[in-house]
Amino acid sequence: MDSENKENAPLSKKALKKQQKEAEKAAKKAERAAQQAAEAEAAEGEDYSKDRYGNTAMIQSRDKPDRVLVKIRTLTASEANKKIWVRARLHTSRAKGKQCFVVLRQQHFNIQGLIAVNDKISKAMVRFASNITKESIVDVEGVVSTVPQKIESCTQQDVELQIEQIFVISQAEPRLPLQIDDAARADDDESQGPMVNQDTRLDNRILDLRTATNQAIFRLEGGVVQLFREALMKRDFVEVHTPKIISAASEGGANVFEVTYFKTSAYLAQSPQLYKQMAICSDFDRVFTIGAVFRAEDSNTHRHLTEFVGLDLEMAFNYHYHEALEVIGAMFNDIFRGLRDRYQTEIETVNRQYPAEPFKFLEPPLMLNYPEAVKMLRENGVEMGDEDDLTTPAEKLLGRLVKAKYDTDFFILDKFPMAVRPFYTMPDPEDPKQSNSYDIFMRGEEIMSGAQRIHDPKLLIERALHHELDLEKIKSYIDSFRYGAPPHAGGGIGLERVTMLYLGLDNIRKVSLFPRDPKRLTP
Amino acid sequence: MDSENKENAPLSKKALKKQQKEAEKAAKKAERAAQQAAEAEAAEGEDYSKDRYGNTAMIQSRDKPDRVLVKIRTLTASEANKKIWVRARLHTSRAKGKQCFVVLRQQHFNIQGLIAVNDKISKAMVRFASNITKESIVDVEGVVSTVPQKIESCTQQDVELQIEQIFVISQAEPRLPLQIDDAARADDDESQGPMVNQDTRLDNRILDLRTATNQAIFRLEGGVVQLFREALMKRDFVEVHTPKIISAASEGGANVFEVTYFKTSAYLAQSPQLYKQMAICSDFDRVFTIGAVFRAEDSNTHRHLTEFVGLDLEMAFNYHYHEALEVIGAMFNDIFRGLRDRYQTEIETVNRQYPAEPFKFLEPPLMLNYPEAVKMLRENGVEMGDEDDLTTPAEKLLGRLVKAKYDTDFFILDKFPMAVRPFYTMPDPEDPKQSNSYDIFMRGEEIMSGAQRIHDPKLLIERALHHELDLEKIKSYIDSFRYGAPPHAGGGIGLERVTMLYLGLDNIRKVSLFPRDPKRLTP
Repeated sequence: MDSENKENAPLSKKALKKQQKEAEKAAKKAERAAQQAAEAEAAEGEDYSKDRYGNTAMIQSRDKPDRVLVKIRTLTASEANKKIWVRARLHTSRAKGKQCFVVLRQQHFNIQGLIAVNDKISKAMVRFASNITKESIVDVEGVVSTVPQKIESCTQQDVELQIEQIFVISQAEPRLPLQIDDAARADDDESQGPMVNQDTRLDNRILDLRTATNQAIFRLEGGVVQLFREALMKRDFVEVHTPKIISAASEGGANVFEVTYFKTSAYLAQSPQLYKQMAICSDFDRVFTIGAVFRAEDSNTHRHLTEFVGLDLEMAFNYHYHEALEVIGAMFNDIFRGLRDRYQTEIETVNRQYPAEPFKFLEPPLMLNYPEAVKMLRENGVEMGDEDDLTTPAEKLLGRLVKAKYDTDFFILDKFPMAVRPFYTMPDPEDPKQSNSYDIFMRGEEIMSGAQRIHDPKLLIERALHHELDLEKIKSYIDSFRYGAPPHAGGGIGLERVTMLYLGLDNIRKVSLFPRDPKRLTP
Repeated sequence: MDSENKENAPLSKKALKKQQKEAEKAAKKAERAAQQAAEAEAAEGEDYSKDRYGNTAMIQSRDKPDRVLVKIRTLTASEANKKIWVRARLHTSRAKGKQCFVVLRQQHFNIQGLIAVNDKISKAMVRFASNITKESIVDVEGVVSTVPQKIESCTQQDVELQIEQIFVISQAEPRLPLQIDDAARADDDESQGPMVNQDTRLDNRILDLRTATNQAIFRLEGGVVQLFREALMKRDFVEVHTPKIISAASEGGANVFEVTYFKTSAYLAQSPQLYKQMAICSDFDRVFTIGAVFRAEDSNTHRHLTEFVGLDLEMAFNYHYHEALEVIGAMFNDIFRGLRDRYQTEIETVNRQYPAEPFKFLEPPLMLNYPEAVKMLRENGVEMGDEDDLTTPAEKLLGRLVKAKYDTDFFILDKFPMAVRPFYTMPDPEDPKQSNSYDIFMRGEEIMSGAQRIHDPKLLIERALHHELDLEKIKSYIDSFRYGAPPHAGGGIGLERVTMLYLGLDNIRKVSLFPRDPKRLTP
């Protein structure tokens, strides 16, 4: 909607000049190349293959040719002897006397192709093929042929393509800022070629994302979101959308990004929590929302982003917040089962580059109480008070201890101390130092925080005053509970953390398409 | 993830004092009320019903009672004579001699309840029930009973509940800022009671959202998103998430919100378009993304929001952008068929408050070319040049003309003039004044804009220079096409517009849970 009618800032004269100069230079270079090619061709006489290869004009939707393009993943021995067209990237090409071997790639599938001089294929055509720049997109016609020996380096191991026509659809520049094969190796495997460090990857993300591993990671991440939705929709949750731009009223001042909003200021929401609670007060009963969440924390760690995708849910319950916690636990198990059953190929692909133990979980999930965790930690040398929060190293250690004792990478930690939870957390009725709140862990890292919320405005005000909050700023939030509010609980999940930890990856930037951190705003 | 551990701004001393004063006042009031109740009870002697009603303590998850709460929508004649528990809002109560009629509400379902003095139910209990404030949440035990005459005012018309116990779970304040029944009437129907104007509704959104109409609108809107995803996932699209915080680099300067980003500045993305194109260049082939989109336009109209939900898609195609346009058309028809088949109840509920003609669409969708539209408009008195954009009134007129001629509320308008489209739009190969771009309309209003994008960096630079853009700022965007880029097309849909126009509503604020416009940042 209107999304493409944007005004744009005018160009400075100096920049304009520079750009024109560059354009002229590029044009001259192209002209020279064309001339050389023409000369070469003239020297060889008429090329009998000349209609079988070349650079095609930019596809501008001029024609609708009646040509079927097949997918590489469908090319197996059962397709042998068929002549097919395929569009793919030229992953590599290697000339060898009168023939040229190419690898054609589509996402994480690839196949070997062969162009050999014969009565249809001229020397010039083989030369053309061997000079196509890596990562160019080509349309290729060829015959599917079985091979005597498995091609170990390709996903299609039983067949190759005997190429009869090859046209470049979109040419890649000859110098790539990173090589796909280098990016596809494990971070610490330098024996096979140069490593690609994280900043190079992220600076050239559109190339980095072409590796089989990245294709698999983001397909699996899409699966996490889909499984989250399926699990909640079958349990009668309604999907809602909450505002990201908020007035000062509903959030505290720290770690929040400020936005210029016409003549006033606004902020970017640190979580949709207040809004999903308001949706519960509006009788939606069970809601979830998926969207960007913003944290202006200057945290440069392996697990913090300034913008991430929040998977948030909130539900009214009848008498006990464990009703909600049971739904949350069952939902996570639905997700883990779904990933295991639907994304095995993706998991294996990622594991080849980044080996990890399979993710283990229990049915139903393990639930521990905070005092039990403190006890386990103390028995293992951690010094901490009953009401202290878990430090990051303590979380990791707890994860290892739980894994050793219960053989699970997933557990729920219930009954956090009141002292370390936000003002809207419902106190435990039996022990006011404890609260009806929980964190959830995967491989020893927190991926979700949640609680029963206070639904009584009087107690909410009391707790807000205890936390020395400015009641004026949270007025509309508190007022939401004045007109009848059901008891409710919920929580917020970080999508990227779930993906990272499920796959056993070591950095959250690996699972964010275009990550944002305090030092990275591009691309 | 960490979502609930926020630092908060300290409270000023003055505000603190005021708050404490208010808290004291409230406490005194509560004390007086308790005293009065005690006196009344004492005056009547022992109440034989006293265990059958009352205000329960705040539900703090102390117990897990073994009580089943049923849903009102399941209460029909087939449940007659069963004794059940239900939790609901007290929609209304009306005392009449020794009995009290109540209406109990759950979302858009409601049932009549009766509390009459008998050997179990005392006068005091009936009085208690008749004094429960509207919108309070109650737990009620009662016997489902068939009624001799249909109860027209309730959704459960064949039965009522003979109440034997009633407990208030969460008490609403006695003075509601708006009455649900008033909010549930059509905007222009003043004969039955006061109207509730839009600002009052939005200021008290958590009450406004409780109407049957709003419950239906947002359930249907959730359906639009789900149907969009289903339609695309079955066509092999991958769901991705794109950053909302962007550097200055990829967008123009107008209509964009500025964000303070640590020691520098950033902007809120006006669309995910550049990122979904980059995902295509990264070999994801077909992608969609759902998320907040921001427009800093000072447009105070019925159809503009400063923050809305964008349903965006982008796909590589083989030879002609109509391949993408066919997918888009089929996707919309999937959505319309899905809404018609799965959301009939919701549509009827909304129509009762806001009557509208059923939404009409054709299989396959109607596709017109821009010159045809210009001709139709000119024949009906509109003066416009071949390369002029459509004005809003012209769009509306065109919608009426198309409806009259083709009997459809949905159509695709292809081949917009190059002059009115953004720089990255692919020109028509036959006529450089036309472009391979399209808008899509529902009931004469634009809900989607899209195009074949230029995938050739040389042409992209040429067009950017023609538009006098600063190439430096769009460098990473242009560079995305340097390493082989497939031809691709896509578009962006405004979720709220689709919902509004499908239902024939008159204002986009009706379909946004907590709308944002230049004048509204709360709640």
